[in-house]
Amino acid sequence: MTKTLISSDKQEITIGFDSLFCVIGERINPTGRKLLAAEMAAGDYSRVLCDAVAQVEAGATMLDINAGIPMADEPSILAEAIQRVQNTVDVPLAIDSSIVAALEAGLSVYKGKALVNSVTGEEERLEVVLPLVKKYGAAVVAISNDETGISEDPNVRYEVAKKIVERAADFGIPREDVIVDPLIMPVGAINMAGRSALDLIIRLRNELKVNTTCGASNISFGLPNRRGMNAAFLSMAAGAGMTSAIMNPLHAEEMMGIMGANVMNGTDPECRRWIKKFREPVVLGEGGRERRQTRRQRNT
Amino acid sequence: MTKTLISSDKQEITIGFDSLFCVIGERINPTGRKLLAAEMAAGDYSRVLCDAVAQVEAGATMLDINAGIPMADEPSILAEAIQRVQNTVDVPLAIDSSIVAALEAGLSVYKGKALVNSVTGEEERLEVVLPLVKKYGAAVVAISNDETGISEDPNVRYEVAKKIVERAADFGIPREDVIVDPLIMPVGAINMAGRSALDLIIRLRNELKVNTTCGASNISFGLPNRRGMNAAFLSMAAGAGMTSAIMNPLHAEEMMGIMGANVMNGTDPECRRWIKKFREPVVLGEGGRERRQTRRQRNT
Repeated sequence: MTKTLISSDKQEITIGFDSLFCVIGERINPTGRKLLAAEMAAGDYSRVLCDAVAQVEAGATMLDINAGIPMADEPSILAEAIQRVQNTVDVPLAIDSSIVAALEAGLSVYKGKALVNSVTGEEERLEVVLPLVKKYGAAVVAISNDETGISEDPNVRYEVAKKIVERAADFGIPREDVIVDPLIMPVGAINMAGRSALDLIIRLRNELKVNTTCGASNISFGLPNRRGMNAAFLSMAAGAGMTSAIMNPLHAEEMMGIMGANVMNGTDPECRRWIKKFREPVVLGEGGRERRQTRRQRNT
Repeated sequence: MTKTLISSDKQEITIGFDSLFCVIGERINPTGRKLLAAEMAAGDYSRVLCDAVAQVEAGATMLDINAGIPMADEPSILAEAIQRVQNTVDVPLAIDSSIVAALEAGLSVYKGKALVNSVTGEEERLEVVLPLVKKYGAAVVAISNDETGISEDPNVRYEVAKKIVERAADFGIPREDVIVDPLIMPVGAINMAGRSALDLIIRLRNELKVNTTCGASNISFGLPNRRGMNAAFLSMAAGAGMTSAIMNPLHAEEMMGIMGANVMNGTDPECRRWIKKFREPVVLGEGGRERRQTRRQRNT
């Protein structure tokens, strides 16, 4: 089965069908976070590092680092953020930018094998991003849209993903180093968005044999109880074969959906992680024997 | 696609891949409920009726009725419970007993097309239960074990299910009136129980083309946070093609997993049910315009 190895200087992780679902923490991203953006632009990385620690403590397997701040020197800010985060936490990073110079600045300081986020199927992006990925021996997120935009037809998105995998191979990047993002549409706008995403994930796993990722919270855009819907989607996507997601590990509902999916997929041996996370306090019962306190009341 | 119709005298429901997931409320069952058992044996059905109303209000599509009380007259208690529940709520019922005389007593008073719960692949059960199902024009839950017990091998369980479908056909019961229970094992005891159940559900849907059900909470037996695990399992099972479950609709986590799966499967048009359930209160915002109050705080 396809295994993608990603590493920092301190940790190597495996993304794959037989591995724990890879949770890529999304919080270090100034988009929509004015305060964080201002701090990063001013050279203050304290919140970045707090976010890094908090996400890892909450169970992130990797962290995504984005420094997309309008009018700022994105390449140098991204490189600085990456260095500081690597000095603070052990997990591998995804280097996230739409600016090629920023990707290169990040890759040049990164210690380990990074995940480049991202390349699309657009010719001009393929031509500049894939050589960078190859040069630094990284892996890459392949977003399944191209010059024609984002197709609502999952077959078209599959073909774009296939093209990127083939182009990557032309540049010497193996299939296992291309992680496809099938592009999750909001189910509040497109009724079949969930089902077609799941069916596309199944095809990407079984036919194209690639690992997959997505911006999971897109699914619930515009709807109430987003975390509950994201949790259901993440469990189902992991069941269909999705192996990672860019998501907020501080959301307990979504992490529970992922942890449950790990148990169901057999990647949490003896349910050890589930039990460690959710086990109830041990109290002394009758006769002094230990027994577990249960949340459920005895049935009446 | 396979559609199973079940009815009361007031409602007809469809179980199928293009329909809302069918939630069969499990609460009316004296097993492990001493007080309920004593009341039912004494002819007091007040708790039965309260449980019926509460489950329907919580979103049950059907109710399972079981009267398995040791030393009691199960056939007459089951028939009485069914009549009273049918006079109280509109939803169709599953008639649940391992005693053939009780199944017949229940079927003889039932108004509509019932679901008989259940028949196994054991020859002596097939020979007595299937004629009853045919006589009353009911549908039946087919449990995929036989004389050899419950196999851990999903291929064996698939073959048992296939045999029951074929035997049902011999008795004139069509495939769509056989709902297969693939038998869910506790994942705390068998690490691959979740994955093999999901793979079996996929085969039952795609190859045997039957609707499926299960006792969902078995999956989490012996583990902490059972509701969270049941929710993840139910979402994943519904994503894999399971179309109903015998479960507790009073557990909000599990119902949310089902409702999320309905959205993802495209069976909750325009997310109407999700929005109705989870929409947040409308408050007056700046300028007096209505705006939705959101639980999520603006990002900092």
